[in-house]
Amino acid sequence: MRTRPLKVALLGCGVVGSEVARIMTTHAADLTARIGAPVELAGVAVRRPNRVREGVPAELVTTDATALVKRGDIDVVVEVIGGIEPARTLITTAFEHGASVVSANKALVAQDGAALHAAAQERGADLYYEAAVAGAIPLVRPLRESLAGDTVNRVLGIVNGTTNFILDRMDTSGAGYSEALDEATALGYAEADPTADVEGFDAAAKAAILAGIAFHTRVTLDDVHREGITEVTAADIASAKRMGCTVKLLAICERAADGRSVTARVHPAMIPLSHPLASVREAYNAVFVEAEAAGRLMFYGPGAGGSPTASAVLGDLVAACRNKLAGTTGPGESAYTRLPVSPMGDVITRYHISLDVADKPGVLAQVATVFAEHGVSIDTVRQQGKDGEASLVVVTHRASDAALTATVEALRRLDTVRDVASIMRVEGE
Amino acid sequence: MRTRPLKVALLGCGVVGSEVARIMTTHAADLTARIGAPVELAGVAVRRPNRVREGVPAELVTTDATALVKRGDIDVVVEVIGGIEPARTLITTAFEHGASVVSANKALVAQDGAALHAAAQERGADLYYEAAVAGAIPLVRPLRESLAGDTVNRVLGIVNGTTNFILDRMDTSGAGYSEALDEATALGYAEADPTADVEGFDAAAKAAILAGIAFHTRVTLDDVHREGITEVTAADIASAKRMGCTVKLLAICERAADGRSVTARVHPAMIPLSHPLASVREAYNAVFVEAEAAGRLMFYGPGAGGSPTASAVLGDLVAACRNKLAGTTGPGESAYTRLPVSPMGDVITRYHISLDVADKPGVLAQVATVFAEHGVSIDTVRQQGKDGEASLVVVTHRASDAALTATVEALRRLDTVRDVASIMRVEGE
Repeated sequence: MRTRPLKVALLGCGVVGSEVARIMTTHAADLTARIGAPVELAGVAVRRPNRVREGVPAELVTTDATALVKRGDIDVVVEVIGGIEPARTLITTAFEHGASVVSANKALVAQDGAALHAAAQERGADLYYEAAVAGAIPLVRPLRESLAGDTVNRVLGIVNGTTNFILDRMDTSGAGYSEALDEATALGYAEADPTADVEGFDAAAKAAILAGIAFHTRVTLDDVHREGITEVTAADIASAKRMGCTVKLLAICERAADGRSVTARVHPAMIPLSHPLASVREAYNAVFVEAEAAGRLMFYGPGAGGSPTASAVLGDLVAACRNKLAGTTGPGESAYTRLPVSPMGDVITRYHISLDVADKPGVLAQVATVFAEHGVSIDTVRQQGKDGEASLVVVTHRASDAALTATVEALRRLDTVRDVASIMRVEGE
Repeated sequence: MRTRPLKVALLGCGVVGSEVARIMTTHAADLTARIGAPVELAGVAVRRPNRVREGVPAELVTTDATALVKRGDIDVVVEVIGGIEPARTLITTAFEHGASVVSANKALVAQDGAALHAAAQERGADLYYEAAVAGAIPLVRPLRESLAGDTVNRVLGIVNGTTNFILDRMDTSGAGYSEALDEATALGYAEADPTADVEGFDAAAKAAILAGIAFHTRVTLDDVHREGITEVTAADIASAKRMGCTVKLLAICERAADGRSVTARVHPAMIPLSHPLASVREAYNAVFVEAEAAGRLMFYGPGAGGSPTASAVLGDLVAACRNKLAGTTGPGESAYTRLPVSPMGDVITRYHISLDVADKPGVLAQVATVFAEHGVSIDTVRQQGKDGEASLVVVTHRASDAALTATVEALRRLDTVRDVASIMRVEGE
């Protein structure tokens, strides 16, 4: 066994970084045995050097991340800063100086994954980012390696713990969105500025990464249709319950039926209570993968948090170190299919639509005509009347999102339709 | 990209083998792109050459498997024969002639994994066997690679589809074991000779493989405590229901609390309906992995069948081919912890015991005394009397299996205990 240690530079020492440093110290013997050589924390770049970091030797701490990655003796850079810059420049600089990179940075990989992979390949380095998607749940490696001989047709999952916590609370307690968000914030499940989570940006970045790997093509954050959960109401959740469903924020990546394009989207959707994703509670994540030969696989676990994310980072660190020792690299980007990403309008889905309508004869016929004119077939209609007003709840059969959107627009123009109270897609059947 | 194809020899062309051959043909372009070179089926060894195999060119078929693996130009041997011999000799010969091996052979890996890994390492070859455990569900690779930086404490799962189908039928229809087995046989879920499945040998082999990888030690089939499902009665299932539980055949691999030993066992057990494994229906498999940093992960999917198993084989084939091209090998055996495997008596578990007792005063006190004398604490007792006889159902707190077994032996010796009607462990809490 080699005795000269592999040197690791850690960029960022927050919740994840400090846990990575801690495990590298407490489990040094295990890591040595599994890698085939000792691994040493050679430097830790932070923004605020004075914050006490338990277990991280003070002499390793620096505020000059650039100098750290330029040292030239670093074998693997672990980037847990997050955000686009300075992470992107630091990672690129690390490759230029001969290091492999393990990153937990979903935003950066979703935006610039192709360029980063190219930079890694040019320098014969590895770029790993299991921690960028669903914390400790192995997804990137199973999709890239275990299913490398299969054809993935669909990835459907709950990949954001904050929004799942909020929707779960709304479902179990009947609370409204704001109330549930407040609870999530108080319990530490939501950040002070929850935008990235509740507006679906975080889930959309993960969807882009998963779609690219699953379909062997390039999908970036901009390709992902994104709707958050801020408009989900207690009434929507109640409607879902009446249908035997619950509401989840889903990331859905699909290959078109003809195999010639893919779609990627993040939006709240109703799913039947019988679907395994319906029982994913609190801040847990779960992802279904449907492949031609493998069938339906599900991966479930904690999607965030310092320890789970550190577990994923360390798995990648072991792989990157092993490859360094063997003088090789793991599988890089696979984007040979060059499948285009279709717009949301091409997605085939179902709508659950609640309408406030005038309570008079002929309204249902009028509404049904609008659906028929757009080629949208109706699955069920439920009508409730009270005091001259009535509500119609329509669930459609599968149709293109464009046709469904056009139907809703046409419904809004009907005199007898006073309001389109809510629209939600129905998935998971 | 290299244009000389990598050559693959297929040993066995039954349900799995013919599906591997089919996908290699229909998805040749994808495999070429993912591997970085074309991959070619160079020979198919079978026992019965005259059986028609759709999609397998007749000129590739041979009955001389030994000559095929000795050809010297084979890059990867795919072994889907099963059983110990001739599979073991063929695999060893394949390594000697420079090939890497992908195997779906759980019995062989569970018995001789260490020797096979050593043979592979000696020749600089790969030995992969994702398909040996839980079909298409990625488990070997996530445990070996994704969790390489973590400490796994427990693996708990349903890893045999046949027995899960039978127990599921008994649970939903109230059928007895024989009736449910007949249905499984008629539907193709059980083989004509179901011994390997219903006696737990298949699950025990998988438990040995999972325990070895999870705990970085050597665990063979003989180390696994094994009980099948043939003695599970409709009454046991009914008892489980009364407790809010269901009965599953579980494979459980655990690291002892002090970290100094491990255990591996397969037996039927009651698990609460609230546990995610309780809702694993029909022939599906699901495995929980509990790791220090990652927390609780679950992997779910079809655990058997030609296509799912072929998916796992092909994922390994892609990895083995990539390594061949790069002149490297993937991670081999990791058994550095050398943790001993403790006997079943050391396992900490809970018992659900049904006793037929004399319906007279003092019996409960007598029974309770026996538990106390063995240091086994009682959680609940349910007593039902009829016609001078009574039944006592006792659920214990956690205790060593040795103490629980000794308690049951002592109960049998009590005059007032007419019969120990059933004993089942309670897990998953």
